[in-house]
Amino acid sequence: MALAGVLAPAVTPFDEQLEPDVPRWIRHCRWLLANGCSGLAIFGTTSEANSLSVDERARLLDALIADGIDPARLVPGTGCCALPDSVRLTRLAVRAGCAGVLMLPPFYYKNLSEEGIYRSFATVIDRVADPRLRVYLYHIPQVSQVGISLRLIERLLRAYPGVVVGMKDSSGDWSNSKAVLDAFDKFEVFVGTERLLLANLRAGGAGCITAGANVNAAAIDRLYREWRSPHAEHLQAEIDAVRALLEGRPLIAALKATLAHFTGHQGWRRLRPPLVELAEREGQELVNALSARGFTVPVNV
Amino acid sequence: MALAGVLAPAVTPFDEQLEPDVPRWIRHCRWLLANGCSGLAIFGTTSEANSLSVDERARLLDALIADGIDPARLVPGTGCCALPDSVRLTRLAVRAGCAGVLMLPPFYYKNLSEEGIYRSFATVIDRVADPRLRVYLYHIPQVSQVGISLRLIERLLRAYPGVVVGMKDSSGDWSNSKAVLDAFDKFEVFVGTERLLLANLRAGGAGCITAGANVNAAAIDRLYREWRSPHAEHLQAEIDAVRALLEGRPLIAALKATLAHFTGHQGWRRLRPPLVELAEREGQELVNALSARGFTVPVNV
Repeated sequence: MALAGVLAPAVTPFDEQLEPDVPRWIRHCRWLLANGCSGLAIFGTTSEANSLSVDERARLLDALIADGIDPARLVPGTGCCALPDSVRLTRLAVRAGCAGVLMLPPFYYKNLSEEGIYRSFATVIDRVADPRLRVYLYHIPQVSQVGISLRLIERLLRAYPGVVVGMKDSSGDWSNSKAVLDAFDKFEVFVGTERLLLANLRAGGAGCITAGANVNAAAIDRLYREWRSPHAEHLQAEIDAVRALLEGRPLIAALKATLAHFTGHQGWRRLRPPLVELAEREGQELVNALSARGFTVPVNV
Repeated sequence: MALAGVLAPAVTPFDEQLEPDVPRWIRHCRWLLANGCSGLAIFGTTSEANSLSVDERARLLDALIADGIDPARLVPGTGCCALPDSVRLTRLAVRAGCAGVLMLPPFYYKNLSEEGIYRSFATVIDRVADPRLRVYLYHIPQVSQVGISLRLIERLLRAYPGVVVGMKDSSGDWSNSKAVLDAFDKFEVFVGTERLLLANLRAGGAGCITAGANVNAAAIDRLYREWRSPHAEHLQAEIDAVRALLEGRPLIAALKATLAHFTGHQGWRRLRPPLVELAEREGQELVNALSARGFTVPVNV
């Protein structure tokens, strides 16, 4: 489990034309890796990846690796609605040497059959046809509305042992993560929120891939490293308190407002439609609440 | 309302490699226009458009127009999750001379603010910046999970009069279609199922954009032309009976199985993952049920 620990779905900064601000994004990625993240799940939900074209994601991945980031620390999101898009992004990630890919099922159609979701993953894997491919299934039913059942995992593990290696469970439902951990040996389960990190580690999970790592990776990583210590519950409570403040608002906008404040770059506040930035006042309230707790983000710009 | 009447979201045939079978698709489009459709809403939900890459959609549109289909009879679906994709497809459609575009809101994120959905449409319109653009809003909340409210329509009509000109209401909820018709003058409302065609025409609606037109356009068009006649209710009941048989199964797969049977080309049965074809037996049952009613599709291949 080269990537066990804390992974950040790095947020994507946009310039005034709503184009990705590539240099700033790379700096943010570097800062995350230097401050608690064992890896980066770029192009996640928190990254607004589905608001980026496939070409934009390809260029960003290229730029990050060209800048010297070790691809072995990257698990890009590559699951799209259209099969050729998922194949293209997955192939790019594998050929670039990424540790794995985090794959959403196609998410436009609803009430899909298990067979249909199975074929979606299987066809991408078959077409990429590269023994280096490592797939992490991305279960985030409250957003994608297309969940990944235990039966589906079982079927994929049987068909693609050593290729389908883990999952990100962003359901927020600990009983689901636990059921997956109990059902499958050596299957790497990352919870989708730092709130469940201690529970996941105690149950044999691999770590967390969490939005919160964009601003609080060091503290989350500390819990990851010290989860067996007597103060583990205290560390969990500390990161929960920060998470609670962020969750009181639309989460991606809250993370960006936090980064804007602590880096001094107001451009961080921007999101691409359909998401919207926090209102000035809301952002200020959030920052005040975080500051009142003594929370700070070491400037990264 | 150049396009009032019956529009088909033309289904997309795939070859053995799951690539679009372009010549067969063009023949299907021609057949639809010659047999009851006033226009084609290519790249709709029924077309599996979100299972096609943007490049694939661009090539298909090019091929259709290059083959001589009048772009003034086309209303392509152009709404994607990523802003640059929606801008690109919308621009291509406008420059090609299409009558309009049918625009989904971005559909990955859920619980969006009205402001966020507004900005999504507005930014595409602003960036395309072409006075020829005509936008039909696509309301299909049971699939996209992102609905288009009356307040949003009102705001868009105020900001973009003459550009935002209508909607496809695929909610299946007649009270919603009726509320839109009542609220906005000269706003072209297409219902998303032929089941509501008579009700829509009686209330001043423009017609229907319906999956069922892929196999039953002539009968639906007859109701459109004769809706004021004494036998209108009978015509409605006739097309409802066919629709009911199709709806007993996954609809897109059912349409494709029907076309496979009546054209003799089994390749029509294929769908791209995450959708799956009807099982042989299910397809046969459907065809038997349709045939028992005397239903036939004039061979089009």
